[in-house]
Amino acid sequence: MKKQNDSKSRRRFIQQSTLFGAGVFLSNPIQLFSQTNKINNKTNMSKRIESKGYAGKDEKGILVSWNFERRPVGDNDILIDIKFSGICHSDIHTIKGHWGPQKYPQVPGHEIAGFVGAVGKNVTKFKVGDKAGVGCMVNSCMKCDSCKNGEEHHCETTGMVGTYGSPEESSPSGITQGGYSNNIVVTEHFAIKIPESIDLKYAAPLLCAGITTYSPMMRMKFKEGDKIGVIGIGGLGHMAVKLAVSKGAEVYAFTTSASKVEDIKGFGAKEVIVVNSAEDLKPMKGKLDYMISTVPYAYEMSPYIDCVKPYGSFTQVGQPINGELIINNFNMIFNRVNFNGSLIGGIPETQEVMNYCAANKIYPQIEIIKAEEINDAWNKVVNKEARYRYVIDAATI
Amino acid sequence: MKKQNDSKSRRRFIQQSTLFGAGVFLSNPIQLFSQTNKINNKTNMSKRIESKGYAGKDEKGILVSWNFERRPVGDNDILIDIKFSGICHSDIHTIKGHWGPQKYPQVPGHEIAGFVGAVGKNVTKFKVGDKAGVGCMVNSCMKCDSCKNGEEHHCETTGMVGTYGSPEESSPSGITQGGYSNNIVVTEHFAIKIPESIDLKYAAPLLCAGITTYSPMMRMKFKEGDKIGVIGIGGLGHMAVKLAVSKGAEVYAFTTSASKVEDIKGFGAKEVIVVNSAEDLKPMKGKLDYMISTVPYAYEMSPYIDCVKPYGSFTQVGQPINGELIINNFNMIFNRVNFNGSLIGGIPETQEVMNYCAANKIYPQIEIIKAEEINDAWNKVVNKEARYRYVIDAATI
Repeated sequence: MKKQNDSKSRRRFIQQSTLFGAGVFLSNPIQLFSQTNKINNKTNMSKRIESKGYAGKDEKGILVSWNFERRPVGDNDILIDIKFSGICHSDIHTIKGHWGPQKYPQVPGHEIAGFVGAVGKNVTKFKVGDKAGVGCMVNSCMKCDSCKNGEEHHCETTGMVGTYGSPEESSPSGITQGGYSNNIVVTEHFAIKIPESIDLKYAAPLLCAGITTYSPMMRMKFKEGDKIGVIGIGGLGHMAVKLAVSKGAEVYAFTTSASKVEDIKGFGAKEVIVVNSAEDLKPMKGKLDYMISTVPYAYEMSPYIDCVKPYGSFTQVGQPINGELIINNFNMIFNRVNFNGSLIGGIPETQEVMNYCAANKIYPQIEIIKAEEINDAWNKVVNKEARYRYVIDAATI
Repeated sequence: MKKQNDSKSRRRFIQQSTLFGAGVFLSNPIQLFSQTNKINNKTNMSKRIESKGYAGKDEKGILVSWNFERRPVGDNDILIDIKFSGICHSDIHTIKGHWGPQKYPQVPGHEIAGFVGAVGKNVTKFKVGDKAGVGCMVNSCMKCDSCKNGEEHHCETTGMVGTYGSPEESSPSGITQGGYSNNIVVTEHFAIKIPESIDLKYAAPLLCAGITTYSPMMRMKFKEGDKIGVIGIGGLGHMAVKLAVSKGAEVYAFTTSASKVEDIKGFGAKEVIVVNSAEDLKPMKGKLDYMISTVPYAYEMSPYIDCVKPYGSFTQVGQPINGELIINNFNMIFNRVNFNGSLIGGIPETQEVMNYCAANKIYPQIEIIKAEEINDAWNKVVNKEARYRYVIDAATI
């Protein structure tokens, strides 16, 4: 029975390779290796996967090349040959210990896109050669109500297993290792299908920047023409603008970078407010139906929250150092705004935003970099110089 | 025409006095004086009202007896002969400058109940002898949408004029002076009708403690059996418990005072959680539909907010020093709770809670004190020794 499945998968893989062109098959030793895994499941599927990545070694946050191993491809796993990996501000916060102490070496990266290189025997969602992606989580209990309801990121028992830095018994390094790497092994449920029509380099940032802004905005069930404010127009913020515009909102973008104004108008924002001080926010007081903030540091939130209409909502998705933000309850009693946070999105919704962006050609504005440029890119992200998402070409790792 | 009105009012007053018993009429020089005002409107209504109160003289917050004047009773004003005045933690915060610099002398007090002693010529809502109360505000523009919609506390032009400490041109002292006093002059719109059936001493605390907790809870439109948490069981908190129980909620009360447990169960709470550390809150994690916090100081909010179910709401009505609270967004992204503030309630809703409590015999648990005991009572409020609302007998001022 297993043998049949194996030959069937192999046939599918060959068909798939034909679709992509033989180049993919021939030029990729990892896929060749993975394919061998598939053929000789019993022996090779138990072998650890050799990986190469860029890892932080301590809280200094300088990434260096690192060879490591991943767990063997299990029965429910797929191996993804990574092609592109986005750089998220969360990578920086995590590796630098801003959100708590870390284990090192640690390979960050949770915007991962590539081709399936091997599939475990129980895998049904993917076949070798498929485009696949991984976002911010790689596992959860899958038994609790949240997991069953597609909110795996809110798993009630073990909690979600983050794509990097989470303790994981099966990982040879003891923690999960992320996407600044040439491959990843992941339970198929936690991999996202990437439609044929979207380039992998555009797909990668959707897996965090896309879903993290899409999920809270969709929860608001906003109507066409509703006024949505977006604070902080970086990787997440520019996706929030594009997604909200695409869904029919009138978008007001708040940035501290005057040099971004034309870009942001190009993303479809109705108005761009360059904020030098709280004074600049006063004209917007009580004007917006909803606001989302992607600012990843503590900032003076009150004058922004005041921009939302009474009884509207404000979602903080950017996570400051230690998570701490000062909220002024004098403002809150007068502005009557509901403040909330939002954590990425579940697997079904991540698939939804991926499909939506592919179908509607909503692509992040990216800059492809080589692996050797990662440290420079991190500095630029912190200095608000990214325009708007750096994406690592994994071939350079 | 005026004369007719005057005699008509006088007749009504006499009838009213009969209802209350002649004692009220005869024993009250202020009312006699006020009645004279009404009769000889032209002359006496232009006279300032002599008042006696207890005022803070500086940020030390020691209250001392003080004679002062209030504005003459204007055409739209009523004079209330104060009988009882509740002590709210806000009085202490304000006088001590915790919420910003103050003008002194300042008479605090915004839970005011008494009898109408005089009415201006345009007054229609009250007649002399009526029971009347004043809460946290005494004026607003009455022209903006918020004012027209009964949300005078959210007046969009001038903002509401607070019952004490707000600049007010018509006030001889330049600021409004509150209820720790023997009388008050107030625009009739901002006075609340107190039903015959409720004793003035019970009515007073409804005007801040009652409405401040009632308003946000009613906004939640909770269903019978919904689980409501109340944090901080003092003046506001114990009213929140009683009101929520009365409206059919299953109430969970959170207190740091073990000595309050039996009382709180007596108020109808299903469960009282004595909180010594965040550990004590863990069993309640994600269990409540809604939570209201009356804690008037900065405190570790996150473990409390975590007690609310995902997508539920948490309202902070207690106002800490400078209004600043730390919110941890790591908790917020996981607990998915909507955090908001709430400021008292509008005049129609204040009337609503007054009528509701009178009709349903929901009375605050009070301790009547003499004016000379105010400073001691303030210390007890700060030290969580109040059980549960101190109410000043204005006859002792």
